[in-house]
Amino acid sequence: MIQNSTTTTTLTDQLQQKIDLKTKPLGALGLLEKLAFQIGKVQQSLNPKLINPTILLFAGDHGVAKAGVSAYPPEVTFQMVMNIVQGGAAVTVFCKQNKLDFLTIDAGVNYDFGVVDGLIDNKINFGTKNFIVEKAMSSDELNLCFEKSAQIVDQVAKSGCNVIGFGEMGIGNTSSASMIMHHVTKITLNDCIGRGTGVNDEQLLKKIELLTEANNFHGELNDPMEILQTYGGFEVAQICGAMIAAYKNEMLILVDGFIATSAFLVAQALYPEIKEYAVFCHNSNEIGHQKMLNYLDVKPILHLDMRVGEGTGCALAYPILENAVAFLNEMASFESAGVSNK
Amino acid sequence: MIQNSTTTTTLTDQLQQKIDLKTKPLGALGLLEKLAFQIGKVQQSLNPKLINPTILLFAGDHGVAKAGVSAYPPEVTFQMVMNIVQGGAAVTVFCKQNKLDFLTIDAGVNYDFGVVDGLIDNKINFGTKNFIVEKAMSSDELNLCFEKSAQIVDQVAKSGCNVIGFGEMGIGNTSSASMIMHHVTKITLNDCIGRGTGVNDEQLLKKIELLTEANNFHGELNDPMEILQTYGGFEVAQICGAMIAAYKNEMLILVDGFIATSAFLVAQALYPEIKEYAVFCHNSNEIGHQKMLNYLDVKPILHLDMRVGEGTGCALAYPILENAVAFLNEMASFESAGVSNK
Repeated sequence: MIQNSTTTTTLTDQLQQKIDLKTKPLGALGLLEKLAFQIGKVQQSLNPKLINPTILLFAGDHGVAKAGVSAYPPEVTFQMVMNIVQGGAAVTVFCKQNKLDFLTIDAGVNYDFGVVDGLIDNKINFGTKNFIVEKAMSSDELNLCFEKSAQIVDQVAKSGCNVIGFGEMGIGNTSSASMIMHHVTKITLNDCIGRGTGVNDEQLLKKIELLTEANNFHGELNDPMEILQTYGGFEVAQICGAMIAAYKNEMLILVDGFIATSAFLVAQALYPEIKEYAVFCHNSNEIGHQKMLNYLDVKPILHLDMRVGEGTGCALAYPILENAVAFLNEMASFESAGVSNK
Repeated sequence: MIQNSTTTTTLTDQLQQKIDLKTKPLGALGLLEKLAFQIGKVQQSLNPKLINPTILLFAGDHGVAKAGVSAYPPEVTFQMVMNIVQGGAAVTVFCKQNKLDFLTIDAGVNYDFGVVDGLIDNKINFGTKNFIVEKAMSSDELNLCFEKSAQIVDQVAKSGCNVIGFGEMGIGNTSSASMIMHHVTKITLNDCIGRGTGVNDEQLLKKIELLTEANNFHGELNDPMEILQTYGGFEVAQICGAMIAAYKNEMLILVDGFIATSAFLVAQALYPEIKEYAVFCHNSNEIGHQKMLNYLDVKPILHLDMRVGEGTGCALAYPILENAVAFLNEMASFESAGVSNK
């Protein structure tokens, strides 16, 4: 964990000085300078390295999806898992292009996959329960989510990976994320609900109506674990547990869009220092995401009007992180290059 | 050049259909979808390829720099050229990281380099004249800029390159770009002038005063070539000529920040169709750049609060273009993956 010792103060001073003396106007590399500083601080190094970048995609089904909160039918979750395993999804194409490792995890899809090459079995159950009328999962199921996802992260960390991102697939999971967002941030429920994969006006009204019903049923919740148990998908809860495990392993955490950030909201409610390890990869087009980022007081790297999920934002932002580390390690200083400073 | 023939209409329809049938919600890849569409259209192909991406960096000195419009002394131009040739600058680090070819061109630096390995001699003169009291260059010099930079682009195109970006180095060149911007766009001069490499409040007032004096001396200009001759640096004029040559070679053009976009403003005033070949790589932190992009009615890829120039925005945005092409070529369709569409 990052400590406020004298040594740390010196290292951060040295990091900032190293950045400031590169051959460019002061501060002119903008967000890249902030990323280089953060990565150096997380790794406690003036010469940080990004090693074995990995995206873990967690998939799960949601009981609430059967109520009709999504533009797509629930079976798309397992169909997309097969597409992801076969490398045909957006995130798998981007990971291959940008050279990130990628793992697909069944956190709780409502489908019996049997043994599928490349699919990790972390199944808690065949989808969550419908949170409009009962809690999405039991307390035991939630604990199992944390336990099982932490095991994977610990294994990945042991392989040497020090930068890890999390993606999701689960029809209905923007509904889950909206409810989590509302309860953690206390932002008005309506401001937390968006079009997800693209519901039309009529479907959006129905989505708002159903989520309001759920909210009335469960009442206001404040305990982060209870919020996650009540509204979380198995994939959302496993991502939350995985983020916390990544933090405990002192890895750099790549946070994706609306769903992944809802998992992060719970993680940071439990471990506020996790924010120092987190990089916010993009600003999703899903309406609540910018409000989540404002709540966390963070600036995302990319603004590409995307709303795919899957960890696509992490995979696309990763080259920017590589470039941030590259300038810190490879650019000349005014002195070494013999360039006059101001 | 892109034609409005029946064949083209069919191809653009097919391109859009190919994008729409990928396994993602409609439009959910945002800007990446627009880039994939544009690249397919430029290459007249449903399976476009980015080949030998190359950044050309043009360097030149400005007579006006001696009047004190920059935070750095004029000798920084040649010092930075040496740093660039040695690979220590931001843009060279990013090009190496993202696997872009890179060429450095002396368009008119006020320094006798002799023979330097890796530096192309395109020198028009030892810096421009001070545009506060006379035209920056002669009409012959301007024509020579276009001729000499087009020769390089033609050569690069012959090597198979189909995507090319342009960077610059030249102390004082935000002043040149501000004047060009004002005359092409007719935006109030004060709104075109920013802090460049980082002048303080006092220096900014002096910069505004000097540029207002220049504006009063030369009066309002409307002819794009006369604007470029009056205020352009040799590097700005060579970039403008190089962009036009890239357009004539039907290459994808990567447009960088404030200076490069000022060159593009002149190029598009001469050849309006060039915009269809241009990708706007980032939104510079230099105050006038967003207004230039608004004037052109275009959306940039990256928003990283950078203000380095050199083509750094092009080099950093290039992986996003690679990912746009990759999703178009490699992602599964709903049909091929057996995923239910809405």
